[in-house]
Amino acid sequence: MTGPLVPTAGASCRLRPVTTARIEGGLLAERRRVNGEAAIPSGPERLRTAGNLQNLRIAAGERSGELRGPVFMDSDVYKWLEAAAWEYARAPRPPLLAVQRAVTAMVAAAQRADGYLNSMVRERYRDLPWSHEHYCAGHLMQAAVAQSRATGDQALLEVAVRFADHLVATFGPGRTEDVDGHPVVEMGLVELYRETGRADYLELARWFVEARGHGLVERHGHEPTYFSDRVPVRDQQTVEGHAVRAVYLAAGAADVALETGDVGLLEALRRQFAHMLATKTYLTGGLGSRWEGESFGDPYELPPDRAYAETCAAVGGIQWAWRMLLATGDAAYADAAERMVLNGFLAGVSLAGTEYFYVNPLQLRAGAHPDENRSPAHGRRGWFDCACCPPNVMRTVASLGAYLATTDEDGIQLQMYAPSTVETGGVRLAVETEYPWDGVVRVRVLESPEREWTLSMRVPPWAQGAVLQGDGVEAGGYAQVRHAWRSGDVVELRLPMTVRVTTAGERIDAVRGCVALERGPLVYAVEHPAADDLAFAGVTGADFRPGLLGGVTVVGLSAWVRVPEERPWPYGPDGSARPGERAEVEAVPYFAWANRGIGPMRVWLPDGRRPDGVTGR
Amino acid sequence: MTGPLVPTAGASCRLRPVTTARIEGGLLAERRRVNGEAAIPSGPERLRTAGNLQNLRIAAGERSGELRGPVFMDSDVYKWLEAAAWEYARAPRPPLLAVQRAVTAMVAAAQRADGYLNSMVRERYRDLPWSHEHYCAGHLMQAAVAQSRATGDQALLEVAVRFADHLVATFGPGRTEDVDGHPVVEMGLVELYRETGRADYLELARWFVEARGHGLVERHGHEPTYFSDRVPVRDQQTVEGHAVRAVYLAAGAADVALETGDVGLLEALRRQFAHMLATKTYLTGGLGSRWEGESFGDPYELPPDRAYAETCAAVGGIQWAWRMLLATGDAAYADAAERMVLNGFLAGVSLAGTEYFYVNPLQLRAGAHPDENRSPAHGRRGWFDCACCPPNVMRTVASLGAYLATTDEDGIQLQMYAPSTVETGGVRLAVETEYPWDGVVRVRVLESPEREWTLSMRVPPWAQGAVLQGDGVEAGGYAQVRHAWRSGDVVELRLPMTVRVTTAGERIDAVRGCVALERGPLVYAVEHPAADDLAFAGVTGADFRPGLLGGVTVVGLSAWVRVPEERPWPYGPDGSARPGERAEVEAVPYFAWANRGIGPMRVWLPDGRRPDGVTGR
Repeated sequence: MTGPLVPTAGASCRLRPVTTARIEGGLLAERRRVNGEAAIPSGPERLRTAGNLQNLRIAAGERSGELRGPVFMDSDVYKWLEAAAWEYARAPRPPLLAVQRAVTAMVAAAQRADGYLNSMVRERYRDLPWSHEHYCAGHLMQAAVAQSRATGDQALLEVAVRFADHLVATFGPGRTEDVDGHPVVEMGLVELYRETGRADYLELARWFVEARGHGLVERHGHEPTYFSDRVPVRDQQTVEGHAVRAVYLAAGAADVALETGDVGLLEALRRQFAHMLATKTYLTGGLGSRWEGESFGDPYELPPDRAYAETCAAVGGIQWAWRMLLATGDAAYADAAERMVLNGFLAGVSLAGTEYFYVNPLQLRAGAHPDENRSPAHGRRGWFDCACCPPNVMRTVASLGAYLATTDEDGIQLQMYAPSTVETGGVRLAVETEYPWDGVVRVRVLESPEREWTLSMRVPPWAQGAVLQGDGVEAGGYAQVRHAWRSGDVVELRLPMTVRVTTAGERIDAVRGCVALERGPLVYAVEHPAADDLAFAGVTGADFRPGLLGGVTVVGLSAWVRVPEERPWPYGPDGSARPGERAEVEAVPYFAWANRGIGPMRVWLPDGRRPDGVTGR
Repeated sequence: MTGPLVPTAGASCRLRPVTTARIEGGLLAERRRVNGEAAIPSGPERLRTAGNLQNLRIAAGERSGELRGPVFMDSDVYKWLEAAAWEYARAPRPPLLAVQRAVTAMVAAAQRADGYLNSMVRERYRDLPWSHEHYCAGHLMQAAVAQSRATGDQALLEVAVRFADHLVATFGPGRTEDVDGHPVVEMGLVELYRETGRADYLELARWFVEARGHGLVERHGHEPTYFSDRVPVRDQQTVEGHAVRAVYLAAGAADVALETGDVGLLEALRRQFAHMLATKTYLTGGLGSRWEGESFGDPYELPPDRAYAETCAAVGGIQWAWRMLLATGDAAYADAAERMVLNGFLAGVSLAGTEYFYVNPLQLRAGAHPDENRSPAHGRRGWFDCACCPPNVMRTVASLGAYLATTDEDGIQLQMYAPSTVETGGVRLAVETEYPWDGVVRVRVLESPEREWTLSMRVPPWAQGAVLQGDGVEAGGYAQVRHAWRSGDVVELRLPMTVRVTTAGERIDAVRGCVALERGPLVYAVEHPAADDLAFAGVTGADFRPGLLGGVTVVGLSAWVRVPEERPWPYGPDGSARPGERAEVEAVPYFAWANRGIGPMRVWLPDGRRPDGVTGR
């Protein structure tokens, strides 16, 4: 088993994930390799140095000393444990298993007799909006389920079950009626329900979802928007407040809807997701435009330079999108998930796998001043004071295989293309492709039972002119072939990989008059010393460069290097820069930026193609 | 005396302020009237309700109870006392004087035997980066000097002197070497030096300025940029970090340079001010583009929607600009001060005088969600949890008369035009004007000694085509008439009041493809239900409306009301909205926005004048 989220047999799924799909090569395999060989093995040392493990030992009474780090330190340990579990599924290495068991033992030792577990909190449940007690519990549950599924070990699952039992006994109607300020326990509880069959876990998850938006956080004296507690989930029209909190809650609510068949809840989530995509999502799939409160801004408030687009929000966005796909079967959710995975999420980690962006802007100016720990002007960093992102990247990269394919009664749907094998229900397929560098996707049937079934291949909405088996197919949705398949059959989908010159809707004020370049599922970025002053003049081509950034296709463009006027007052009757020289510039995939040092970068370039031309207006 | 900052006789001033100038009518007189009749009288009740006065009583041992509010609560009391003092100079009313004396007595009662005074801090000087102890002291000193100058009362001055003596005894080389995280004590100490002649106060101010940028704040474990402590003041090239801190420090350093004749320090401040104007100032004069850390962003990072542009930063900007004007005689500083006063600062207060903006954006979208106390989406508010801005507005409006005129050996310079009388050195002038609504400024000599002197009238850089006594004069700098003046002489300056269509330099990405409207010294704003979707088509005129917003000139414009496409994904090959209808729209002075309810507003409008036209690109 290669990833999280296995709905129960009774779940209201249109699609079910193929959790045994394996990425065998290409871009994502390389990312998973460095994640498994470099990042995950470095985790325990990071957790030791930052104090996370010491905190657990202090809680267990094995050490004395001062607790270190933010209140949610335990969650970093759990995310690392989850990552180690999924990595074990990719490449079962005994030393990693041994470390995982040792860390699991530290966690178990810190658990109280009644199941409660948190190394940082002195007085239980006194300040749930800030204390992250359920948040840590949720990550523990996710890690425990991963460990059980991927390694067969039950040690962490036992800890998680004890904690969940304690939560069930403590929270809910007629018991303590309160919710954590940071959702994730909802997803954790539903997963634990799936793993153990314990319906009370699902019920508590359902209650945590429904309890929000009824003043619980305000009762503690906090403004509720930040905490996703202003509006009941089923009445909410948009996403708002802290972006990671919002999408984790939505993903958890989607889990509840999947398992309970709650059509009204699903409809509310569908509406919120649609509003997020239409008004609050960056071209890269990045979520959350405000540094202040790490939050979603107002609709269309999407500045490229001050984009927050936290790496963790991309993780939550992918989790939410995937659950919506399973619930609805709507390929648009897979489109969104792919955009997030290959752009906003993957930019969060270096090609070496061991450095991370907390914040993922779409523009960095020359000489941007890094005034704090998270600033992207530092470039990617090995760890953070608030280290939520690094182990979140590790667990997500380690489980990317889970997002490749789904099934329904009718057959198999390929959702994300990578060189891979997909095995389910007696069918074994090999996907052969250079995607996302090339648009040809060949599916080879290695094994199939003797009956008709439908192979569905997602055709992204940008793939105008896609061709399946020689016939044109519509962009958006699935191209399907129904057939009594035999071993050796091959299906070929051709997705056009033309470079696209993309503009933003008029209401997205911050990138007015600009264009961005896309090719296939990838958004491109220009890294150039004069990036502050470039104006787009035209696309000149696209080339795969095996030696560049681990092998990427670059997009060539022609640009004006404008000469900005240095004026004592920058406003006046004519704000235009002088045209300047023409330059040939290469754009690289956004996810790969800042791997050759940190410097000026733009996704959106002023459009200098107009007849009056060169000013980029 | 109508305002702060009276340089000593020995100060290195090119110009000296005329502190006896009086605003007699027009826009600023009305603002001062409501400030004096509504805002300032409401202050004590605000300070009582918020807990500021109670805190002082607790500190004095007269009450018991819990201290309330942020650590700098005392400073609000001092700013109100300063406001009350300047207001007394405008309109000496015994009841206000009585309240001022009662509040002064509360302050005096809270002072410790050794001169220390702070109602909130338990352990002195333990955490100066955050404790605001010197910050509160600085505001106390400013208030004390105001009280002494405007009312003749010495009670607060005695308190301030005792505190200053304590600071002199405690801080400096060989004593405690530390600086406050929030500058203002530098200005306070120099003013106190001016009032008392105590050179050790100037010396301590000088030391506080020079001590910054040498790791003192970092020693407390804080990142120094926010606290204006990353770089020594005389090495700094720009403004950075928390905007109010940065400009308060710069204004204090300018005071030190004025009084010490430190040419190198002045040159450093000149360079920083120039970099601020060229790269980090909004069209409105607003300072500080980031909510996160209430800080200056990187150069050219000037989003209109998420502009922070704190009202207090405008106050500090005006203070700094005015000191630079006195030191250098360069009219460009008066240009900047006027822009800040009439736009970014004045927008901070309602026409009624009693509601305030903390944050002054240049755009508000329809349905913007007010997710916190300071959000401009609330509209102006009567007070804030962190109430630095309201009393800062009160004291600044009350002392606006101080920014009208200056003198030098050669004569008198009129710096800001308002119906006013200016009296200095035996000369008495009446300024007759409808400015900023009309560009005609008539100066009538009411009295003059029998000798030649030069009348200098500032001609703002936007006033291309200005005419003095029938002759064209250059925009930027001063138009001068040297004459042996006699009572009855009249000089007439005509400033053209054409509506200007202004664009921003190319590097200011956030308003690319947009225009703003200006007329005279005023920046205009469109308040319109469809403001999110308007594109500028042309100016249609300008009209004075006596009944609107207390009497303002509106600018008429023609606009396209574009019909935005509601797309599930807002990015694509063609981002243009459909043209929509043409509409006639009125723009109002930016300072007057949000006085008819809160709703969509824009200073920058997409430019829809292009031949291909209507998309605003």
